[in-house]
Amino acid sequence: MTSIEESLEIISRGTDEILILDELKKKLATGKPLRIKAGFDPTAPDLHLGHTVLINKLRQFQILGHQVLFLIGDFTGMIGDPSGKSATRPPLSRDEIVANAETYQQQIFKILDPDLTQIEFNSNWMNDMNAADMVRLASNYTVARMLERDDFNKRYATNQSIAIHEFLYPLVQGYDSVALRADVELGGTDQKFNLLVGRQLQEAHGQPPQVVLTVPILEGLDGVQKMSKSLGNYIGIDEPATEMFGKVMSISDDMMWRYFELLSFRSTEEIDSFKRDIEQGSNPRDIKFLLAHEIIARFHDEQAAKNAQADFVNRFSKNEIPEDIAEVDIHVGTEGLPLANILKQAELVGSTSDAHRMVKQGAVKIDGEKISDSRQTMLAGFEGVLQVGKRKFAKIRLNN
Amino acid sequence: MTSIEESLEIISRGTDEILILDELKKKLATGKPLRIKAGFDPTAPDLHLGHTVLINKLRQFQILGHQVLFLIGDFTGMIGDPSGKSATRPPLSRDEIVANAETYQQQIFKILDPDLTQIEFNSNWMNDMNAADMVRLASNYTVARMLERDDFNKRYATNQSIAIHEFLYPLVQGYDSVALRADVELGGTDQKFNLLVGRQLQEAHGQPPQVVLTVPILEGLDGVQKMSKSLGNYIGIDEPATEMFGKVMSISDDMMWRYFELLSFRSTEEIDSFKRDIEQGSNPRDIKFLLAHEIIARFHDEQAAKNAQADFVNRFSKNEIPEDIAEVDIHVGTEGLPLANILKQAELVGSTSDAHRMVKQGAVKIDGEKISDSRQTMLAGFEGVLQVGKRKFAKIRLNN
Repeated sequence: MTSIEESLEIISRGTDEILILDELKKKLATGKPLRIKAGFDPTAPDLHLGHTVLINKLRQFQILGHQVLFLIGDFTGMIGDPSGKSATRPPLSRDEIVANAETYQQQIFKILDPDLTQIEFNSNWMNDMNAADMVRLASNYTVARMLERDDFNKRYATNQSIAIHEFLYPLVQGYDSVALRADVELGGTDQKFNLLVGRQLQEAHGQPPQVVLTVPILEGLDGVQKMSKSLGNYIGIDEPATEMFGKVMSISDDMMWRYFELLSFRSTEEIDSFKRDIEQGSNPRDIKFLLAHEIIARFHDEQAAKNAQADFVNRFSKNEIPEDIAEVDIHVGTEGLPLANILKQAELVGSTSDAHRMVKQGAVKIDGEKISDSRQTMLAGFEGVLQVGKRKFAKIRLNN
Repeated sequence: MTSIEESLEIISRGTDEILILDELKKKLATGKPLRIKAGFDPTAPDLHLGHTVLINKLRQFQILGHQVLFLIGDFTGMIGDPSGKSATRPPLSRDEIVANAETYQQQIFKILDPDLTQIEFNSNWMNDMNAADMVRLASNYTVARMLERDDFNKRYATNQSIAIHEFLYPLVQGYDSVALRADVELGGTDQKFNLLVGRQLQEAHGQPPQVVLTVPILEGLDGVQKMSKSLGNYIGIDEPATEMFGKVMSISDDMMWRYFELLSFRSTEEIDSFKRDIEQGSNPRDIKFLLAHEIIARFHDEQAAKNAQADFVNRFSKNEIPEDIAEVDIHVGTEGLPLANILKQAELVGSTSDAHRMVKQGAVKIDGEKISDSRQTMLAGFEGVLQVGKRKFAKIRLNN
């Protein structure tokens, strides 16, 4: 048995907001499995790591014994974009929606437990609604409050048109919570407004309002913009292992911690210990390997992750080091020599002070690993590639 | 055959606006009977003269051979007021709506030709609409344009809440024009916005847009505020003839012309001749009698109008003239005497110059009719009541 406090710790990790925390405590205290809702767009079944931040959170709820309601919002998908403004959103057929749903399942069950997952379609109840029901639904919310939503507000203020049906979508999404009797709804921080509409509609229908839990939006490979397919800065969960591995390795050392927090299942303690390791001189690349490995193992398997890593190291060497580089034998005696002197003897720098400067700038690598100490002693027996900047290489052998 | 120009003259009389006049000309030029729509609230089948301004206009279209679509907006009536703000608007049952519709028919066929009138209910097509259809309908209009509507604009600006379903009603009303393929829609000036929504929706559905014709809002008995049941300043078309007659007689002499313009079927020429008559000394009361007579004859019959007038004169005398007033015999000779002298002899004034002044002030009446000429000669044989101010009366008999 997990205590309520333990549950809350797991649930809270990496979340942006929980509204209202006290209500969540009370719901957890009942000891009953909660109904955890999350809504997905029926038009885009290609999930990327950005989506999995939320799906991971669903998984955590499952680990705690709760039921996930994976809602596919096909009602609006079957209408298409009625504003006629976007030629790219023709209505989806029932067949297309079923096909998309299968793709979703294939993808989400890499993370979620099928036994604790209900796939739901909102056309199920929305198709039974008539025009009068829709009028009644619309009566539950005011124009002024709808215009408070960030994007509506901006568009209204800047005279960009908002079609009236756009005011109905948040209501439909909110009504889904009524139909599903959701206890908790998860969404990205940009969904907060819609999730709160759900609370209000549940109350209007005499239900206890759902707890709203928002998760941060994951930045893409660029470390700045939201991960999205259209921006090309994404890692798709169906991508080949080697591709995924390379993309994870391409993120900055800083962004790595963000990805650890939002994507890794490792404990916070373990991640903190990685940070300490790096402070004490470990190569960040090795820690990033652990992240890439975990992610690839999740969406492929352990072996695929190992192969991807080997492949990465291999390709990395191939790509970075020219084939015909000078081979240099250097005599270092029994005591060894400082790195700066070796760089000088290998004619990769003009002087040892040059060498100190280049190391300081992070321009010196041994076997592809950045070196931070120009005074480190290198001993006889070493064989490897020294690199200064992007273009100067030497294959050295140290003898005594 | 009425020419287009003649038709336009009849149609234009007493209207506020016709949008767009050229389109109306073209529609008339086809020579086909046009479909003339007007919408009515299902909750208030008690029509008053204010409503008949519009119904009269429908009648004129019928006289020109066109078809009237008398639309009862029962769709929203059957929903009730979903905002829950008004406890006074519970949903109407199908039975109540049918009963109301019968009352409407009873009333409107006092003016309209049943053979050229179709009674329609918008539940007929709105009940077939599902939620998705409603979303599509809502996509035809923008939030910004809806907020341009006068009342919405004021409420939004003053932070009075507008529920979102209120944005759907004008769209439903507009869609009725699509369902009915209306050529022309009539409404009060306060309905202009809604009628224009109809034009836009028809265009969105590939129909030629309806011509919008607005009629002025009739002032009530007070001559200032809109005639309405809740203000108590109305003349119901089902009221007893004597009641109606008295109410028409109570309007001011100025307001009488407004009522002639908007309620009478007399020609403009005839009404202009009445104005000239009064300028030349006719008693406005007599002209008002003609108005009251016409209106009572329309909603009751000719005999009822006559009786109501007789009753009015009778009650007027009873009310205004005390029962025990002095009876005075006055000798006027064969030539008669000026009114001023008679007033003096009857001791209603102190002097003939008093008499001239009182007449000038409009304070002198003979048999309840105001007199404007203090020098008019009164001949032997006259018997009647002279009145000065509110309290001085004498029943006089003139002898030679």
